[in-house]
Amino acid sequence: MIPQNAEDFRTIWLSPDDQTVVQIIDQRLLPHEYRIHDLRAWQDGVVAIADMYVRGAPLIGATAAWSLYLASLHADDPGQEIQIAAEALLQSRPTAVNLRWAVERVLARLQSAGSGDELRTVARSEAENICDEDVEISRGIGNHGLPLIEAIAAKKNGGPVNVLTHCNAGSLATINWGTATAPIYFAHQKGIDVHVWVDETRPRNQGSQLTAWELAANGVPHTLIVDNAGGHLMQHGMVDIVITGTDRTTRCGDVANKIGTYLKALAADDNTVPFYVALPSTTIDWESRDGVAEIPIEERDPAEVTDIYGVSNGVTTHVRTTAPGTPVSNYAFDVTPARLVTGLITERGVCNASEKGLLGLFPEMDSK
Amino acid sequence: MIPQNAEDFRTIWLSPDDQTVVQIIDQRLLPHEYRIHDLRAWQDGVVAIADMYVRGAPLIGATAAWSLYLASLHADDPGQEIQIAAEALLQSRPTAVNLRWAVERVLARLQSAGSGDELRTVARSEAENICDEDVEISRGIGNHGLPLIEAIAAKKNGGPVNVLTHCNAGSLATINWGTATAPIYFAHQKGIDVHVWVDETRPRNQGSQLTAWELAANGVPHTLIVDNAGGHLMQHGMVDIVITGTDRTTRCGDVANKIGTYLKALAADDNTVPFYVALPSTTIDWESRDGVAEIPIEERDPAEVTDIYGVSNGVTTHVRTTAPGTPVSNYAFDVTPARLVTGLITERGVCNASEKGLLGLFPEMDSK
Repeated sequence: MIPQNAEDFRTIWLSPDDQTVVQIIDQRLLPHEYRIHDLRAWQDGVVAIADMYVRGAPLIGATAAWSLYLASLHADDPGQEIQIAAEALLQSRPTAVNLRWAVERVLARLQSAGSGDELRTVARSEAENICDEDVEISRGIGNHGLPLIEAIAAKKNGGPVNVLTHCNAGSLATINWGTATAPIYFAHQKGIDVHVWVDETRPRNQGSQLTAWELAANGVPHTLIVDNAGGHLMQHGMVDIVITGTDRTTRCGDVANKIGTYLKALAADDNTVPFYVALPSTTIDWESRDGVAEIPIEERDPAEVTDIYGVSNGVTTHVRTTAPGTPVSNYAFDVTPARLVTGLITERGVCNASEKGLLGLFPEMDSK
Repeated sequence: MIPQNAEDFRTIWLSPDDQTVVQIIDQRLLPHEYRIHDLRAWQDGVVAIADMYVRGAPLIGATAAWSLYLASLHADDPGQEIQIAAEALLQSRPTAVNLRWAVERVLARLQSAGSGDELRTVARSEAENICDEDVEISRGIGNHGLPLIEAIAAKKNGGPVNVLTHCNAGSLATINWGTATAPIYFAHQKGIDVHVWVDETRPRNQGSQLTAWELAANGVPHTLIVDNAGGHLMQHGMVDIVITGTDRTTRCGDVANKIGTYLKALAADDNTVPFYVALPSTTIDWESRDGVAEIPIEERDPAEVTDIYGVSNGVTTHVRTTAPGTPVSNYAFDVTPARLVTGLITERGVCNASEKGLLGLFPEMDSK
């Protein structure tokens, strides 16, 4: 079974057969296996986050919230159990902003709840709210980004609108629709001829293994390319617009995203291809201004670079591509300066990648 | 046995035990297996070129020349056999410029040769000449590129000179020393503290599988990175100079090289990191001016993108990373405009990437 990205698709949900079980897609196995994984205790949620069964800031947050619901179910002292679970969840991926936000939000709601039953009801309802709100945020991004694609389609005399994207800022990273993919899905649903160049996204291959998978599941035409190819495509007029996601955006519009995003932004700039970044406003870091100077870039396990997941003779396995002992560096993100970003697509609208642009959409942050 | 890149290292040689056998390294198996492969008949040379046991323009040309020597050895009518071999060799990698050049050069020398014995002697001597001259060309590039690294070392207060390279323009692509790597090897031999960032170079991983291998074999400090990482490193002052090779350079200094080179050149330009291209003058296309408009870019087998060579449980194998049926595009090269190239390192010296710069070193081409 491969889900169609219809209105009711979700990346995390309560089991229809058992309301004490939360279900997720084990994304580590995609695209070679589509396996639904049961979370029966909050500890399962910690493992799912730490071991990357789930990834993407919104989905990590939602998984944490649902894990607190699981913590409320079986303990003699659910209040204490929730506190223990919250501590463990916060440690599971320490750098994920949405994780802390979701945990603190559920804890805050639970403070006014009384008995075990009420705790359970409130925890469940807050996890549901977090998911529903995230879907609405993606919908807002999709609705505001759609006109950008429509405008290109109107200008082109036939032929598809060619969108290039990097990494997976798709349904699989959120609850549904994704961020960078939301305008693409909405355009496709509206019958616009849209085609996506999918960057492989080394080292973890989220493009070839997740974005290509979900676009295929939804019937969106796409072509996989290596991360090296985008510049050549842009030089030859084969890319109409770039849309990526972001992990963190500064107050001035600098964008931290998957390593390699900066290189695509440079190529877009050199070939006057519009370069847009789609984001929920929760990922804006209003305290930070200069992304290159201020945003710390995580270095991850060298094995992500050297060991590659795939299928050999029908069996899923990893191969090591390098000679033993090859020294490896693995920076996970880079920062694209605002000057290279044509615009930011948020749930409230599209704005310039600048403090003025962002404050125009989020005036309540002006005094902060 | 892993060869040290000493003065006498070669990528192709006559067997010391049998002067009718030519030996090469089966580069398809690196870095997981180092296997010497015997060429006993010219047909073996065709296979070695077509199936990429050998790659890199100079080494392809040398393999063709040695294959003509093999053709001269055993036939009743060596002259006819050489003609048949020449035709087949020219078809083995139709786009390789050095291949045609080497075949035509040997054929021209053979025209004045008489008997079978003389044919054999002349063919062997011309193959040897081609190899010896290529080593001298690489040495020239190394000698002229070395001062660029020395100058950076002199300016830095300790710490290594960090060179970034893309693909394999190393010993393995030539007969010895390589092109982009020659200045690096010479700097290392001179005791300069040099460290190389090795781009993985998707899709064929020539960086992780060939460049990293030969740098390790020669004791040159290096670190493997994904192709996405170079921009981030340059933003943070971690790259002092970029040196790449090229497959074809236009009269005006545009550079066609492995896909992704253009992206690194953009990042170098954006961070004022010097970006040099090392080339034997035989790869200059004096007829071509505008690389982006004029140089056709080869599209290669999608399997290069989807199927990855490595080791799993001690056994070499390929894994398919993508879901079956994922559409793939695989452009092999891109063009870096001369405006992004700081200089060209040739066997005659370093010049600006411009017609004026090139004609300054090669005045004999002025009237052409």
